[in-house]
Amino acid sequence: MIIFQPYGIKIKSYKKESILEIAGKAGIRINAVCGGRGLCGKCRVIIREGEVNLSKPTEAEKRALSEEDLKCGFRLACQARIEETGTVIVEVPPESQANKQKLLVKGMETHVKPKPAVKKIFVRLEKPSLQDNTADVDRLLEAIRSQTGLKVNVDYEIMKKIPHILRMSNWRVSVVVWKDKEMISIEQDSSPDMYGLAVDMGTTKMAGYIVDLRSGKVVGATSIVNPQIVYGEDVVSRIKFSEEGKLEVLRKCVINGINEMMGRICKDTKIPHERIYDMAVAGNTVMQHIFLGITPKYIAQAPYSAALQSSIDVKAREIGVEINPSAYVHVLPTIAGFVGGDTIADILATKIHEAEDVSMLIDIGTNTEIVLGDKKGLIACSCASGPAFEGSHIKCGMRALAGAIEHVWIEPGTFEVGYETIDDDKPRGLCGSAIVDVVAEMLKAGLIDSSGRFIMENETPRLRRNGEKVEFVIAWRDEASSAHDIVITQNDIREVQLAKAAIYAGTSILMRFLKIQPNDIQRMYLAGAFGNYIDPQNAKIIGMYPDLPLERVRFVGNVAGSGVRAALLSIDAREKAANLARKIEYVELAADPAFQSEFLKATYLPHKELWRFPNVTAMLNRTLR
Amino acid sequence: MIIFQPYGIKIKSYKKESILEIAGKAGIRINAVCGGRGLCGKCRVIIREGEVNLSKPTEAEKRALSEEDLKCGFRLACQARIEETGTVIVEVPPESQANKQKLLVKGMETHVKPKPAVKKIFVRLEKPSLQDNTADVDRLLEAIRSQTGLKVNVDYEIMKKIPHILRMSNWRVSVVVWKDKEMISIEQDSSPDMYGLAVDMGTTKMAGYIVDLRSGKVVGATSIVNPQIVYGEDVVSRIKFSEEGKLEVLRKCVINGINEMMGRICKDTKIPHERIYDMAVAGNTVMQHIFLGITPKYIAQAPYSAALQSSIDVKAREIGVEINPSAYVHVLPTIAGFVGGDTIADILATKIHEAEDVSMLIDIGTNTEIVLGDKKGLIACSCASGPAFEGSHIKCGMRALAGAIEHVWIEPGTFEVGYETIDDDKPRGLCGSAIVDVVAEMLKAGLIDSSGRFIMENETPRLRRNGEKVEFVIAWRDEASSAHDIVITQNDIREVQLAKAAIYAGTSILMRFLKIQPNDIQRMYLAGAFGNYIDPQNAKIIGMYPDLPLERVRFVGNVAGSGVRAALLSIDAREKAANLARKIEYVELAADPAFQSEFLKATYLPHKELWRFPNVTAMLNRTLR
Repeated sequence: MIIFQPYGIKIKSYKKESILEIAGKAGIRINAVCGGRGLCGKCRVIIREGEVNLSKPTEAEKRALSEEDLKCGFRLACQARIEETGTVIVEVPPESQANKQKLLVKGMETHVKPKPAVKKIFVRLEKPSLQDNTADVDRLLEAIRSQTGLKVNVDYEIMKKIPHILRMSNWRVSVVVWKDKEMISIEQDSSPDMYGLAVDMGTTKMAGYIVDLRSGKVVGATSIVNPQIVYGEDVVSRIKFSEEGKLEVLRKCVINGINEMMGRICKDTKIPHERIYDMAVAGNTVMQHIFLGITPKYIAQAPYSAALQSSIDVKAREIGVEINPSAYVHVLPTIAGFVGGDTIADILATKIHEAEDVSMLIDIGTNTEIVLGDKKGLIACSCASGPAFEGSHIKCGMRALAGAIEHVWIEPGTFEVGYETIDDDKPRGLCGSAIVDVVAEMLKAGLIDSSGRFIMENETPRLRRNGEKVEFVIAWRDEASSAHDIVITQNDIREVQLAKAAIYAGTSILMRFLKIQPNDIQRMYLAGAFGNYIDPQNAKIIGMYPDLPLERVRFVGNVAGSGVRAALLSIDAREKAANLARKIEYVELAADPAFQSEFLKATYLPHKELWRFPNVTAMLNRTLR
Repeated sequence: MIIFQPYGIKIKSYKKESILEIAGKAGIRINAVCGGRGLCGKCRVIIREGEVNLSKPTEAEKRALSEEDLKCGFRLACQARIEETGTVIVEVPPESQANKQKLLVKGMETHVKPKPAVKKIFVRLEKPSLQDNTADVDRLLEAIRSQTGLKVNVDYEIMKKIPHILRMSNWRVSVVVWKDKEMISIEQDSSPDMYGLAVDMGTTKMAGYIVDLRSGKVVGATSIVNPQIVYGEDVVSRIKFSEEGKLEVLRKCVINGINEMMGRICKDTKIPHERIYDMAVAGNTVMQHIFLGITPKYIAQAPYSAALQSSIDVKAREIGVEINPSAYVHVLPTIAGFVGGDTIADILATKIHEAEDVSMLIDIGTNTEIVLGDKKGLIACSCASGPAFEGSHIKCGMRALAGAIEHVWIEPGTFEVGYETIDDDKPRGLCGSAIVDVVAEMLKAGLIDSSGRFIMENETPRLRRNGEKVEFVIAWRDEASSAHDIVITQNDIREVQLAKAAIYAGTSILMRFLKIQPNDIQRMYLAGAFGNYIDPQNAKIIGMYPDLPLERVRFVGNVAGSGVRAALLSIDAREKAANLARKIEYVELAADPAFQSEFLKATYLPHKELWRFPNVTAMLNRTLR
């Protein structure tokens, strides 16, 4: 048996199971960025009792954990396996807990006039008599037709309820009709309430919203870490896992996650599940494939074709989502293998496809999608920006959990460091927004040069050599709830340079494609589930996006959520989404001959060609003076 | 030379040979239960040409056949002998064809031009490339559109298979499309095979047919006793059982029964279940409700309204029928609570709705449905004829299993009894057809009078008192595999009188409704899963149906099965069925003021008003003379 602390959860365990697997069974989420392969070192747990019942530390653990750590009982949850029966008490330290994450459910609000796919109709029927004993279903459909002009079919499961409900209601019922063609609910009360569920399925995070389909108002929202995370943090590891015959495991994860979010909101708002008559869902192309149980494997193999591009409506009961079982789930269309329904949702929410002026949209994540254009046309690309902005591949990086440093500033001259943590907890590590800040602040303070190299001439105890490696201390061990100083290393800076270079090169290729100068861009939308924590100025300073006046930059947060809500609320928005999916031109960066050189030049801070960043250059000169 | 029809078999004949003997040489089995002694009258044939080459009718033929019959060319095969050389064309009507199969799957064959709801299309796709990496599903749908002009959706479960099958088949696949709108199968081979399953769900028996949807041919057929029988023999007891919350139990019974039949045929024919792309099913209204899992309870309560009247298509996987899980099951429409899709099927098969002449159709069962009219219009009613003709409520009654006496004849004067049993087993009881024979033969032999009462003056040990009750012995204990003599009682005769009176009264009310005289009826179809075992002459003698010349009477057996196959094979037939269901006028017998008196008069044998049965009366007078 294993007891997990601080949760107090006990669970039976079997020989050869890893602690990570057992935690999964117990519903405890432990960070496992590398998918349990012992590479990322994020799943550190402390064995409080019963270490003798576990396997000996592996080579991976010896690499990831210091001798000190091992002595203190630290192990990697993915490596430590049960060898003997007996109780093991495992403490999951906060930095390894995946569920406390600060999760963004909010994004820019988009005004959408409700025009839902479902309608509720109150129907009065004539009672049957010996003179007219037309069958119940036929009678109901005829009453609907004569009252509304609609000729509808009946969902098979609903049909079974009709005889009983007609009689219980004394032949006065409410029916819900989907797309003017299928009856998906019959109720004996006359409540006009109609709700819908919108879900934004991120690779890392999922957000759920229950929306009043009549008013368009969000009545409840929540978010969780995508439970698939234990099987790998990025889409590539998910694809790999699905190829091992575990597609259904991944699919169930995301369905369970959606049901969990919905259950939570329904409980809070007292909305019965059966009153949720519609659902819209979007994610990247891989997530959408997994959600539908369709193999994503060919997305990752040349010529990178997805299985499905168009939108699709599937019965909730076939998918397993616990809204009204006869309702349909609308999955948004995608643009290409790596530009998914979430990007369509971004566009629906920001309406850049309807704008006179040229707009650019950057949805930052492990994959970053970029869209450029105006109402005359849009182009899109996807760049593998990597997980640095999610706190991964960074020595002291972590996700946006309590205790994560989220903002940092460095005093030029003294090099003293100030920071802010999530929930004002003692600092445990650096999350994505802090990493952007650190690089920008170090650049401004002259601690690193344009190539990203530490300038060792600066005199401060924070800048130091650690063996072969150079690092800068953000928080000292005694101020942190960590056994170590929280530092940024030369490697970390390199990771950020690569990540931001990929994004900038993407923007650059798209601009070149449309023959647009940075100054032509009237509106820049930065999006992402963590997008609004990134300081816009600092992101510009490191050269993540073109050097635009800040007033043109808008931080729209998890705007995909707003877009999915738009699609949920309005069939016109779905029609727009279908048009967008057909019309947006996808630019394959890897196939562009200019990409490599654009990428290399963009690894500089802010850029090798400083003329591209006149405002940033001016500011750096000012602060360094 | 003799030519036997409908077989088209020619065979040399010699003088003095009987037609029965010649048929035997030709391998044609004609009923001859009395062993060719001219007693049973079962070997009736029609001489279509060359009667002059035959012997003159014998006394036995004059007893067995009416003058009308003789005029029309009817002869007994055992009596008619070759007298002159020359061609004789002999038609063996279905009721004289000896058929070993007692569970009836056969009925009149109806020619239907195949126009199935499903199409199989062979599709060649362009392989995806970096230049065109349109998603698999979109690519396939576009290929179908450009090849056939069809804009189709994809069944959700099929969608999951598309990426794999496209690649396995090297981008050449066969797809099956339902109703030009939904893809329900994708296959990597190019076999054009398409099969469908037709099911006639009787209250007592079910018949299943696998049909080649391209040729329209039945490739396999079988039948079983409806497994629901353990929960009650008639629909009323099934309804009662379903009200006790056991609807799902009943539903599973019938689904399992269908799967069993299909499994049996698929095994014999080596047709894979997945190649069955469509299904049509019909039964009485209650059976259809149970099949769909919809409560039938309101059918039995005033004002007797069904839950569903229209046809419906439901996914096989939602119903649980093990054909291709993405295929649809088409359930035929019904006319009223007690006139179901099986009656619609009867009409489709007999085509009485397209006939210039007036036809009557009687589908005999526990409930007997009657349809009357011509192409200008049809009316229908249902009468509770009770289970007597299925061997129930009869002292020594039994179902048509091995050992059941199925035909009986009684020698006038001696009152000696001859009989035939199913499978030539020792007799165990009387099935429905024997019961009809017994009553008719007793009437002809003067053992009962027109009121059904035993005439005790007849001297034979077979007629005896058993306590208060009177009975007639059909088979003595020592010849039977029963501990008792097999008898027919006064009560049994009463049961038959009530049953046939209900049917006759129904025909009478319908004729009155349309202001039609018996002689206006040009064609009488007797149907039922056991219908072709009932001797038509004897059924007429007891007054089950109006006194028509026998040549107008056709025994069409389980014709509902033929009608369901028509609906399976052709969407035009389904359209016709929908029109029939809308247009046929339902006559509620219980609501007709004339019914009670019609019913009472019809309890007499053949009828209280003998002028209604001139031929039968003449024949009875002849035999009694």
